[in-house]
Amino acid sequence: MGFSINRYEKSAAEYERALKVIPSGIYGHQGPAEGCFVPVTAFPFFSERAKGSYFWDVDGNRFIDYMCAYGPNILGYNDDEVDEAAAKQRSLGDCITTPSVRMIDFAELLVETVASADWAFFAKNGGDTTTLAVLTARAYTRRKKIVFFKGYYHGVAPWTQKIDYPGILEEDVINNIYVPWNDYERLAEVFAENKGEIAAVISQPYLHGNFADNVLPAEGFWQKVRKLCTDTGSVLIIDDVRAGFRLDLAGSDHFFGFQADLICFCKALANGYNVSALCGKEFLRNTVSGLTYTGSYWLSAVPFAAGIACIRKMRRLDLPRLLNEKGLLLKEGLIAAAKKHGYDLRVTGAPALFYLRIADDDSLMLHQRWIAEMVKRGVYLTNHHNHFLNASLSDEDIKRTVEVADEAFSVL
Amino acid sequence: MGFSINRYEKSAAEYERALKVIPSGIYGHQGPAEGCFVPVTAFPFFSERAKGSYFWDVDGNRFIDYMCAYGPNILGYNDDEVDEAAAKQRSLGDCITTPSVRMIDFAELLVETVASADWAFFAKNGGDTTTLAVLTARAYTRRKKIVFFKGYYHGVAPWTQKIDYPGILEEDVINNIYVPWNDYERLAEVFAENKGEIAAVISQPYLHGNFADNVLPAEGFWQKVRKLCTDTGSVLIIDDVRAGFRLDLAGSDHFFGFQADLICFCKALANGYNVSALCGKEFLRNTVSGLTYTGSYWLSAVPFAAGIACIRKMRRLDLPRLLNEKGLLLKEGLIAAAKKHGYDLRVTGAPALFYLRIADDDSLMLHQRWIAEMVKRGVYLTNHHNHFLNASLSDEDIKRTVEVADEAFSVL
Repeated sequence: MGFSINRYEKSAAEYERALKVIPSGIYGHQGPAEGCFVPVTAFPFFSERAKGSYFWDVDGNRFIDYMCAYGPNILGYNDDEVDEAAAKQRSLGDCITTPSVRMIDFAELLVETVASADWAFFAKNGGDTTTLAVLTARAYTRRKKIVFFKGYYHGVAPWTQKIDYPGILEEDVINNIYVPWNDYERLAEVFAENKGEIAAVISQPYLHGNFADNVLPAEGFWQKVRKLCTDTGSVLIIDDVRAGFRLDLAGSDHFFGFQADLICFCKALANGYNVSALCGKEFLRNTVSGLTYTGSYWLSAVPFAAGIACIRKMRRLDLPRLLNEKGLLLKEGLIAAAKKHGYDLRVTGAPALFYLRIADDDSLMLHQRWIAEMVKRGVYLTNHHNHFLNASLSDEDIKRTVEVADEAFSVL
Repeated sequence: MGFSINRYEKSAAEYERALKVIPSGIYGHQGPAEGCFVPVTAFPFFSERAKGSYFWDVDGNRFIDYMCAYGPNILGYNDDEVDEAAAKQRSLGDCITTPSVRMIDFAELLVETVASADWAFFAKNGGDTTTLAVLTARAYTRRKKIVFFKGYYHGVAPWTQKIDYPGILEEDVINNIYVPWNDYERLAEVFAENKGEIAAVISQPYLHGNFADNVLPAEGFWQKVRKLCTDTGSVLIIDDVRAGFRLDLAGSDHFFGFQADLICFCKALANGYNVSALCGKEFLRNTVSGLTYTGSYWLSAVPFAAGIACIRKMRRLDLPRLLNEKGLLLKEGLIAAAKKHGYDLRVTGAPALFYLRIADDDSLMLHQRWIAEMVKRGVYLTNHHNHFLNASLSDEDIKRTVEVADEAFSVL
């Protein structure tokens, strides 16, 4: 017993101010409206600054941050190398009528780094790239249907949402087919039932959904899916927005031993600078060229300069290996701390993107109480979403996290 | 005769390099693939740097820039005030797990500045806000159909595209109804024919489409549309992504004497920093709160800090008045230069967003040749898209532009 308990008076006051001018105050996972993610009494709402593996909230509390802005922070907040490259480009110019050659340099680096990339197309949101991928697949195959794996997340465009979500029409999702993850037999059936009609399979590299243990691909699953798509002329789209670069700099498809036709990147591409990329195979290049797809800031040079610096540093650090080691150390420590107090903590998914759940807790309330005790003691975890590691997380940070876990389990 | 003629050797070489790793080399309006916009021999493809009203290409040519990155540059490139505010925020942090209170400050400033704004929701692309507006209207009204005015542009989401565009399905556009601009009678007919089925009318504040003279609203048009939407319980969405803040800091709806229910902003919001905003009326706040809509970088603090500085400076400069004066001066000069050489140059739309066309030139080839002669002499105009003014454009720049126009007409 010794970790001080955070108070969030300023966060609470600022949230009241936010509620007046922003619908629900804060939207997305970060908002208290999604209470299942962040119980309001345990979590800070507003940050003041960030550096490395930490951020500080408006009340002055410091957190070891295991969410990394939901992915973009991969090297550590305000990484000097990335920020210097970005600042240098900014002094020249950012969003200009014609693009900078940094765009070409960045595309060349991605093509060199990512195994399934013969070209790169840049946008802003991860969802810009998943929508572009689906448009590309439909234009190329002249087919309509898209196969999803249940538990997916591919952004917020209407075609990715559910029929019972507000504002969504039947027409938005009528060409979607949903198959259980890792169920190759059902997938093959779906292909047989919809012969010549499936434009694409879109999938994350493994199942890293919310509210459920994350599930890696079954042995040989991806190789069979790859062959099925090739045999039937369907496009295989990998949405690597969340896992990208944390498993393998050559792409998470490469990590699992296959190649996507199209692969979507965003979060970890430029250490928080705003850019996303669709990469793909040569045979789809002309199709992409023929689509109507552009945006106001898509050719801005600063995020390209940041992305170049980020990928170079990730390569130099051999980042996936580094994050895997940190993740394994953390996993071992957390499981041991839980066991000491009689809890069975399940740590699933890739270690660099670990998902946590206390077993034998069907209501998930015990788990939420434990997470709250962690956060109140300065370790920012979240309840039912995978976490993210970054390169600046130190062994000392991990040691402290495990000590906090010990105390948090003890007070449950 | 005295203006030197640009050469683009480095641009051409870089374009060859781009073609290897980026579909069509450069996409969007900036790319030579859309040859109607930028004839390849006259235009630079890649910029090196920018400041104020100018950018310099990779061959060292300087341009007086009338495209302003297709809108985002509203104060002048690399504006010191905006860049300082952004740099100060960056030193604290940008894309962090929890948002900064700059988000609240920016929302408060928008609510204070924009007449029809009771709240603000931030995203990244203009298209993020038009899609959010349509989702909001459908969720609120529980209706499907959306009315567009022909010649519209509301981004690149599938619902905004045309049935004959590659990758687009009938389902994407089946609930769209298209009405001629300024044709209130037809609009009223459409409402009668689709009674109780129209979720929203979405429109730019005036018709600023491509390949055609831009057209301001007819007297009383918007007031009648506003009343029709109110009477029928349909949502009136104004897409102010392109014109926003150049006509009126309180919104282009305010400029034309009405209030939108939802208004979309992007380009000029933060002088090139990457942010967009949907603003709207109180009665839609809870509906927006209930939607599934978020993105990886949407809570980043640097663009909010930039946007705050940008709006404050626009207010201090009384920017719409300033741009209107510059636009009128330029219009007068260009028309006179054309007339001197026997050409009838039509300058349409708002002066701050002027659209150019040489009359009596149905093939548009004469017009394209004239534009090419302007660009080759260092005045960056485009062929069949409206232009954009920024606050740093000087009277000297305008004088030089008119002199270049005189010479360009003389060599046609």
